[in-house]
Amino acid sequence: MGTPVRVRILGVGMGPQHVTAEVAEALRSVDYVLAAEKADDDRLLGLRREILRRYGDAELVALPDPPRDRSRGLTTGGYEAAVGDWHDARAAQYAAILRERGGTAAFLVWGDPSLYDSTIRVVEKVRALGVDLDYDVLAGISAPQLLAARHRIVLHEVGRPVHITTGRRLQEAVTAGLDNIVAMLNPPTDRVDFTGLDDWSIWWGANLGAPGERLVAGRVCEVLPAIAAARADAEADDGWVMDAFLIRRPR
Amino acid sequence: MGTPVRVRILGVGMGPQHVTAEVAEALRSVDYVLAAEKADDDRLLGLRREILRRYGDAELVALPDPPRDRSRGLTTGGYEAAVGDWHDARAAQYAAILRERGGTAAFLVWGDPSLYDSTIRVVEKVRALGVDLDYDVLAGISAPQLLAARHRIVLHEVGRPVHITTGRRLQEAVTAGLDNIVAMLNPPTDRVDFTGLDDWSIWWGANLGAPGERLVAGRVCEVLPAIAAARADAEADDGWVMDAFLIRRPR
Ligand SMILES: C[S@@+](CC[C@H](N)C(=O)[O-])C[C@H]1O[C@@H](n2cnc3c(N)ncnc32)[C@H](O)[C@@H]1O
Ligand SMILES: C[S@@+](CC[C@H](N)C(=O)[O-])C[C@H]1O[C@@H](n2cnc3c(N)ncnc32)[C@H](O)[C@@H]1O
Repeated sequence: MGTPVRVRILGVGMGPQHVTAEVAEALRSVDYVLAAEKADDDRLLGLRREILRRYGDAELVALPDPPRDRSRGLTTGGYEAAVGDWHDARAAQYAAILRERGGTAAFLVWGDPSLYDSTIRVVEKVRALGVDLDYDVLAGISAPQLLAARHRIVLHEVGRPVHITTGRRLQEAVTAGLDNIVAMLNPPTDRVDFTGLDDWSIWWGANLGAPGERLVAGRVCEVLPAIAAARADAEADDGWVMDAFLIRRPR
Repeated sequence: MGTPVRVRILGVGMGPQHVTAEVAEALRSVDYVLAAEKADDDRLLGLRREILRRYGDAELVALPDPPRDRSRGLTTGGYEAAVGDWHDARAAQYAAILRERGGTAAFLVWGDPSLYDSTIRVVEKVRALGVDLDYDVLAGISAPQLLAARHRIVLHEVGRPVHITTGRRLQEAVTAGLDNIVAMLNPPTDRVDFTGLDDWSIWWGANLGAPGERLVAGRVCEVLPAIAAARADAEADDGWVMDAFLIRRPR
């Protein structure tokens, strides 16, 4: 029996400026960093490289992204199943590398590992494949936090709750009577269902922390066109766009 | 007209290990740091001093805490009103110092400024008092994120929402049908209302990031006694206790 592989799951926020002292220290101690190489997404790989250059310069081992079977998305439950298969393929790749190289490996997670991220789940799958590993998780700044910081707001009213969900589930949260709702993983703004939300307040942001960052705030019915325009501008600037928003029920 | 005072609201997470690169840089650039001196809470002041020592050693200006009128808590709406008065008193203190000293001042916020924190609100009040100031907000690691990192969990199931609320409002969230609920600002565990939650899963943590840190996870009905004991141990170790937990509805 050899020593277990050590795996560190490191939240890096929205860029090098958000790396915490403990994540910087972890980066200096790892032997290599595992990263997905997505055809449509190599700016994330670029950001990872920039973070590594700044903190210890560990070797980046980029793995080709296993193909995702998008046809499964068409049947009910198909989406979860397709994501599951894709995670399995990913886990098998990682298991092979970790077995081969051993030592201490890190994964850099965009934002915080606790919010809409699959790294923990995939590492658990690697372990289930029989790889002898120990892992820990370090927190990072998430998109909703950066959204709030940039708008200089608290996510909820005094002593009230905040609900974090996906753009697709926005109306569910409204129907459940919630007052402060953060939406992530949004489709383009014209495909988000804002029905009935005309009088709500919205604080919206795209490409937070990146050069193309855009912010818009106001009453939903008044600012939706400005948001659509700002989203297009962010995408033109950076070549990619991700957005998040908070909506608040009128009193 | 002089130059406006510059105010920076800096999230510092649960200790020096969570300070981000941008907050560290901000700390090195400020002229002084304003902090509340609470009779019951000088370990927070101690932590602020430790953070300052590590990042730039700016001067700490500690202000006595204005007394809070707790008797107002007895009438409906009294709590919010008392908090409002206390914020006003706090804002007046800060306004006086900022007017006198000018330059660049910082506030260090425990965790993240966007979650159950009044600093942004108080700084807005200072400005409303006529102090000419500009301010920005930098995000920090929050208690729910650290809770998730320590338990190595994602706060929600795949693609599902997470709801963040107070211990006092826990049952409201359950009644609203929510499945993943984080509770903060909790009274001692035996005063949290866990009625009907026997079969839920709980991930609980106290004094996260501090020497007395404690973690407990399991089915609510099975682990409540262990949580009460761990809470007492955390308090014995550190001389203070704060806890947070995630509960998840059984499938
Ligand atoms: C797969 S989730 C990852 C979330 C991440 N783990 C976090 O803690 O924020 C991706 C979603 O996060 C949000 N997001 C990530 N980066 C963002 C950015 N720079 N600006 C705005 N939203 C962002 C968007 O809603 C995006 O669809
Ligand atoms: C006034 S709120 C401040 C929250 C902070 N702004 C944040 O981002 O986490 C205080 C509550 O945060 C949680 N909390 C703060 N520090 C904690 C710690 N070290 N361990 C566990 N919970 C903590 C507790 O629920 C506590 O009652």
